Formats: sequence, C-alpha cells, structure tokens
Amino acid sequence: MTLSVYLAGPEVFLPNARQQIDRKIALTRAAGLVPIAPGDLTIEPQPTKRRVGHAISAVDETMMDSADAIIANLTPYRGVSADTGTCFELGYMCARGKLVYGYTNLAPDLRDRLIGYYDGKVHVDADGVLRGSDGLTIDDVDMSDSLMMQGGIERRGGQVVVHDAPPDQVFTDTTAFEICLRLLAERAGLPSST
Amino acid sequence: MTLSVYLAGPEVFLPNARQQIDRKIALTRAAGLVPIAPGDLTIEPQPTKRRVGHAISAVDETMMDSADAIIANLTPYRGVSADTGTCFELGYMCARGKLVYGYTNLAPDLRDRLIGYYDGKVHVDADGVLRGSDGLTIDDVDMSDSLMMQGGIERRGGQVVVHDAPPDQVFTDTTAFEICLRLLAERAGLPSST
Repeated sequence: MTLSVYLAGPEVFLPNARQQIDRKIALTRAAGLVPIAPGDLTIEPQPTKRRVGHAISAVDETMMDSADAIIANLTPYRGVSADTGTCFELGYMCARGKLVYGYTNLAPDLRDRLIGYYDGKVHVDADGVLRGSDGLTIDDVDMSDSLMMQGGIERRGGQVVVHDAPPDQVFTDTTAFEICLRLLAERAGLPSST
Repeated sequence: MTLSVYLAGPEVFLPNARQQIDRKIALTRAAGLVPIAPGDLTIEPQPTKRRVGHAISAVDETMMDSADAIIANLTPYRGVSADTGTCFELGYMCARGKLVYGYTNLAPDLRDRLIGYYDGKVHVDADGVLRGSDGLTIDDVDMSDSLMMQGGIERRGGQVVVHDAPPDQVFTDTTAFEICLRLLAERAGLPSST
C-alpha cells in the first residue's frame, strides 16, 4: 500500500527552492510515503504572464487531485499569516476529503503574533472582543492561523504541529515537517521507518 | 430557480461587522441571489477557545456546502495578501465544483504591491526571476494575489474584479462586490434586477 502526499508551502519561492524541495522529497520517501511536490512540474510556454499563472494553477490542482494527503507549511510568510496559495491548497484538499496535516515553524500563536503586529496596542471592546488599534478583531482561539485552516485540519483528525525554529531557519527547518510525516505514516498504518 | 452565494471575506473582523455584512446581504438579495453569510451563525458554548474555533469552522463549512457559489473578498488584509481564512474557503469551493468569483478593492497587482513591500529593493536573478531583498520570489503573473486563487477562479470561468477603492473604504466599498453579483446572476441566467 502506498500513500502519496502533496507538499504544500512557500518553499517554491525560496532562493534555494530546488534544494529545499528535494530535501522534503527525500524525507517523505524515507518516511515510506510518496512525495508529490509543486516544484516538480514543467510549464509549457504561454502567450501571456497570466496564462503562465493559469498553467501552474492547473498543474498544481492536478497534483493535489492525485494525492492522498497534504502537509501544508503554514509558517507565516511575508507578514503575520501563512502563504495564501498554501491556504487555498489546504482548503482544496479538505473539500476533496484527503488526509490533512499542517505545521508552522513559529511557536507564538496567531493571537500573540497579532499583539506584536499592533505593538501591543490592543484593547477589549464592550462585547469582550479583543481588537487591534485599527478596530479589527484579533483571532483568539488558541490556534496558529485562521480557524478555518486549523479547524479544518483538526476536525478531520489531522494535526497542526508547532515548532520553534531558529530565526534564520524558519523557512528551512524540517523538524515539524518530519513529525507530520510520522503522524501521517502512522495514521495510514505504514510500518515505522525508523 | 434560485442561486445561493457564500459571502467570504474579512468583514466578520470589522468593528462594524454586522452592518457591513447586512449591507452585502441586502445587495445580494437585490441582485436576485440568496446570501449565505458567515456572520449569520450561533455558536453553542464550548469548553475551550479552540473548540470555539472548531465550532465556527464546522458551521462555515456547512454553509459553504449548502451554497451554489462563492464571492471571495480578496482585498489585502493586514499585509500584502488576502485574509488566509478567505483563501482557504475559496480553495474549498473550487474543489467542491461551485461557481467561484473574487474581488479586491486595491488596484495594484501583487507584483507591484510586493515591490512596495520591499521598498523597491528588488532584483532579477541569473535565471530571470524577480526577487525581493530577502531572496524570495516576487509573484509576477499579472494577478491580484496567489496564482492558485486567481487561476482557480479564472480557469473555472469566474472572474477577479479589481476596483480602486478610496483608502478609507478599502474594507467597506462594495463596487467590486456588486459587479461580482451581477456577473454571477448573468451566468446563472437570472433576469436582470436593474
């Protein structure tokens, strides 16, 4: 029996993308799982930039459709929250009924990251809701990112693994990713690879 | 014939959330469509904050499952990209085969917003890829946000409507939302409501 897993995350945007994706692919194989990685694609030449975007979107969706599971790297990317493309992919896989896991390499939860985002200038409104200085609600449900994502994962029996990576390894540390691989392999009843 | 549409977006986090959601509900009805709005829910008391998050996630997914379409507000939220929960929901609805539309109230595309994010300190690498000062790829496919989202919408015959809202109305301007409603009603073959 084989179980294939779509490796979602912002690794494709790294300067050393190929190296990092290859590392995740090797770790996935070592865990007894079949990696399906969004960097592994050839896009035919297209007449416009936007058509290039459509072509990548189509290939990535096809890859997701072929996978049994997803492990989504939800580490905050260019700001306080996860990479939006990865969030889309996680929603897509939840709706397709696949096995869903996620991880983040930043330990503070979304609430604490947002308090930092507002430099501590937050307040509780008359209804007891925590808000930033601009009045926007601060997510306060003990989760790493949007409740749609962590809720979508946990309600399906998956897990969001939180790891406190060194600041210079936030995009490359694979500790949490490897825990996800182990959880997924166990769930699929694969023999332990260690 | 009726067509129901899930109104996805960060409006639920606004200080005047109820008012803004009610406005979108009224506009949806005026367009001849049936609104399904994530603010319209009652969450039973839960033993922990995280269980509250799970309960909201469950209700929102049920609402999405019951809807024929989604209009996702992809206006950048607390940073350079869309609200992550909304991105998840858009991916979910794409995977469920629903009618998918989106809009943004910021006119500059993701490439230009990212050049701003890097204060113009961007460069083209040896492979011709545009990168920020931290080495991360700058999305450059003539789209408003991640190609997974705009590609997912456009490849399914939907549209991402771009509107240049006044800076103080970025979260409340409904011009682009109303265009989405019209496009959706036309696509569903509903009689014009104007």
